[in-house]
Amino acid sequence: MTESKLPSKENFSEWYHELLKAGQIIDVRYPVKGMCVWYPSGFALKRNVYDLMRVLLDPDHQETQFPLLIPETEFMKEAEHIKGFEDEVYWVTHGGTSPLDIKLALRPTSETAIYPIFKLWVRSHADLPLKIYQIVNTFRYETKHTRPLIRLREITSFKEAHTVHASWEEAAEQVEAALTIYAEFYRRLAIPFLFAKRPSWDKFPGSDYSIALDTVMPDGRTLQIGTAHLLGTNFATTYDITFENEAGEQEFVNQTCYGVSERCIAALISVHGDDKGLVLPWSVAPVQVVIVPILFKEKEATLEVCRDIKAKLAAAGIRVEIDEGDERPGAKFYRWEMKGVPIRIEIGPRDIKNGVAVLARRDGKKLTVSLDDLQTTILNEAADLHEVMLARAQAFQESRVKDCETVEEAKEQTQAGVARVGWCGLEDCGHAIEDEVGAAVLGEPWRSEETYQGSCVICGAKTEKCALLARQY
Amino acid sequence: MTESKLPSKENFSEWYHELLKAGQIIDVRYPVKGMCVWYPSGFALKRNVYDLMRVLLDPDHQETQFPLLIPETEFMKEAEHIKGFEDEVYWVTHGGTSPLDIKLALRPTSETAIYPIFKLWVRSHADLPLKIYQIVNTFRYETKHTRPLIRLREITSFKEAHTVHASWEEAAEQVEAALTIYAEFYRRLAIPFLFAKRPSWDKFPGSDYSIALDTVMPDGRTLQIGTAHLLGTNFATTYDITFENEAGEQEFVNQTCYGVSERCIAALISVHGDDKGLVLPWSVAPVQVVIVPILFKEKEATLEVCRDIKAKLAAAGIRVEIDEGDERPGAKFYRWEMKGVPIRIEIGPRDIKNGVAVLARRDGKKLTVSLDDLQTTILNEAADLHEVMLARAQAFQESRVKDCETVEEAKEQTQAGVARVGWCGLEDCGHAIEDEVGAAVLGEPWRSEETYQGSCVICGAKTEKCALLARQY
Repeated sequence: MTESKLPSKENFSEWYHELLKAGQIIDVRYPVKGMCVWYPSGFALKRNVYDLMRVLLDPDHQETQFPLLIPETEFMKEAEHIKGFEDEVYWVTHGGTSPLDIKLALRPTSETAIYPIFKLWVRSHADLPLKIYQIVNTFRYETKHTRPLIRLREITSFKEAHTVHASWEEAAEQVEAALTIYAEFYRRLAIPFLFAKRPSWDKFPGSDYSIALDTVMPDGRTLQIGTAHLLGTNFATTYDITFENEAGEQEFVNQTCYGVSERCIAALISVHGDDKGLVLPWSVAPVQVVIVPILFKEKEATLEVCRDIKAKLAAAGIRVEIDEGDERPGAKFYRWEMKGVPIRIEIGPRDIKNGVAVLARRDGKKLTVSLDDLQTTILNEAADLHEVMLARAQAFQESRVKDCETVEEAKEQTQAGVARVGWCGLEDCGHAIEDEVGAAVLGEPWRSEETYQGSCVICGAKTEKCALLARQY
Repeated sequence: MTESKLPSKENFSEWYHELLKAGQIIDVRYPVKGMCVWYPSGFALKRNVYDLMRVLLDPDHQETQFPLLIPETEFMKEAEHIKGFEDEVYWVTHGGTSPLDIKLALRPTSETAIYPIFKLWVRSHADLPLKIYQIVNTFRYETKHTRPLIRLREITSFKEAHTVHASWEEAAEQVEAALTIYAEFYRRLAIPFLFAKRPSWDKFPGSDYSIALDTVMPDGRTLQIGTAHLLGTNFATTYDITFENEAGEQEFVNQTCYGVSERCIAALISVHGDDKGLVLPWSVAPVQVVIVPILFKEKEATLEVCRDIKAKLAAAGIRVEIDEGDERPGAKFYRWEMKGVPIRIEIGPRDIKNGVAVLARRDGKKLTVSLDDLQTTILNEAADLHEVMLARAQAFQESRVKDCETVEEAKEQTQAGVARVGWCGLEDCGHAIEDEVGAAVLGEPWRSEETYQGSCVICGAKTEKCALLARQY
């Protein structure tokens, strides 16, 4: 165990890389660029995050698994889709020492693996809607600079859902249902985000439209942490996926797909972490409570009380550990803070005599609590901590989104966060915005309750549309 | 929903293929040979099976995840290992349209991906033992005839554990610990098996020795359903994995690895299934109890009672469904039997009046039970059903393992199952046995309480060793 010193979070990029190591999330020393190893503690966090995703999806989706390798012939069928991915696909060309008859693509996403099978599974309106998901490794031959958990060549846990519907309207409703699930997912991770309808030039290849979730990272750049795509009949036409409607006629199905990658973990680490290390939401923390016995005298008696408390908390379903090591308490505090454990309980002989313990939250709040209602207090403090984390993250995000009237203003604002500008909606003006501001159009706000009144920052036309701009990861 | 008719299990190969489809386990129509799609219900089964594996491993192992792609340079380092795999490896040679500088292997197993990182993780005796596992997709370019779940080109869930120890003896103890875990895993799946120490020519490439678990399939051929390998210092030497011992000296570590693939599911289906369909062990059945309301009159009142029962069972942690469909009960029984649900509860208006229900077990046993202690009765019957399934499977296995005195006898016996013959232990005689009997040497029995006294079936030498022979999948 080497203890690394963490740079200040103000130095975000350095801090992030160092924290992945010091917090034992992933090891970047694997000898292929953009492919990483999950440390056990990082994997435990990932497992909890994806279990949470399963809890949210399972009531209305079925989990499945499709092969990784996609024959070139299937992969090449959807012209727009392949255009979007052809530069980024890894190809398997040999088995043993023999060349393969047909090259096999490592899925960058699974539409072209799944939809030929959907053609077989969907026959009649009785088979619809069909809603499946899988959590799988996917691959992108990134030529840009890779970043751990953010821009990877192997995404080890891509959660992709694919649904099939009788009508375009039903599919559009499913996109909204997906966004609601993702919103709940991120609420439970205390991560705020913006919904944006991606501009036409940045939608998913082969979709009618794409809605994305972007979160503002500490350095003001945005990270796309989820997307939902209305595919309409585009893929159905290519893969000939039809159903017999109630009138007995064959119709093309309408489809959606939506995904979240392990960027959700990059966001979780970046949004909440601080200069002391990880700060993990209670919902997914592998260790939710650590008990640190204060062992200067009556060692065995103190340990016994601690073990008893641990057993009770564990029986109540709390993920709890006890640190019985020989280090001084201060060293233990430091280590468990680095790991992001939400709540620490300190108990010494005097506390036991008084029937109390010290409860220290990862956000710095400390209180003395009665041992009699320790469990209730822990759960209450955990719930409050979650709200504090979410409120703080939301306040940060709000402070980093600003209306801008001019290209100059937007240029400055996108150095710090997200700029909102008037946009007439024309593609030419959209491209001009990107060029002149030097940032990406995330798209129009989606599901926003606010209305907009202004003029296009490029052509000056009056408009009720606006665009969110940001420098993107 | 098309209902397929199942051939008799006596016709094992046909029955197996048809059951994978009718039981909705996997769809073999994916357009790459040897790669399959998990149906939602098959995936639910797989999820439960691997969750069970996690329950058994987690107390003493940490779950991790390593990249799929292994650079040729690392892959080629361990000479014996690569010899064992070079004909079977898929190679990624291109990213986008550009050839890669270094070819990347799709892991057939992960020693060569993991051990360069172990070199970084292990520094001193304080880091040992290190015990990790991962559940990942692995690939073999099989040139032999592929079979769903048995011989695949993509194994979608390979559970591989890798451990690192200070001494050879400790590593050998870990092999035994692994075998104990696997024995418990298969006990919970009610699958009997034989332990065998693989002959030197069939051990894992790069190991000191390999112990395997083989189960006897309905047609008498054996299926290897788990292996544990003592690697000694072989890989440590190649990948330079050393630790500082307590005396301050650098020593090579000793290692083990052990794995179970989704063949465990092939075994589960094959060992327990019958002419009516799947027969799933209670421990992993996605639906453990199905309630079939008998709806000829007082429909709503009956349904209400059924829903109430369902809620109570679900609250007790039982995976329960209620079949409210419009089909006749007989059609429902047929369908749920095909799915292998361990216990069916039938409830009609008269039963309700009498405060009873009919409990039908998947093994045919039927009893009338009081609604008052339905939950207790279900759990008792489930436990008994498990024992019955295990006993029946064990009886079958025992009936298929026989001592043979001559090559001729062994030849006949291996048409039906496993032959045990005297073997002097010399490799030449071993090869001669395989050639003359026309079956594989599974190896010497391991952890067997029986002793053997006989003579080598080839050279006639007196021996206390014996070999298990079988035709293998």
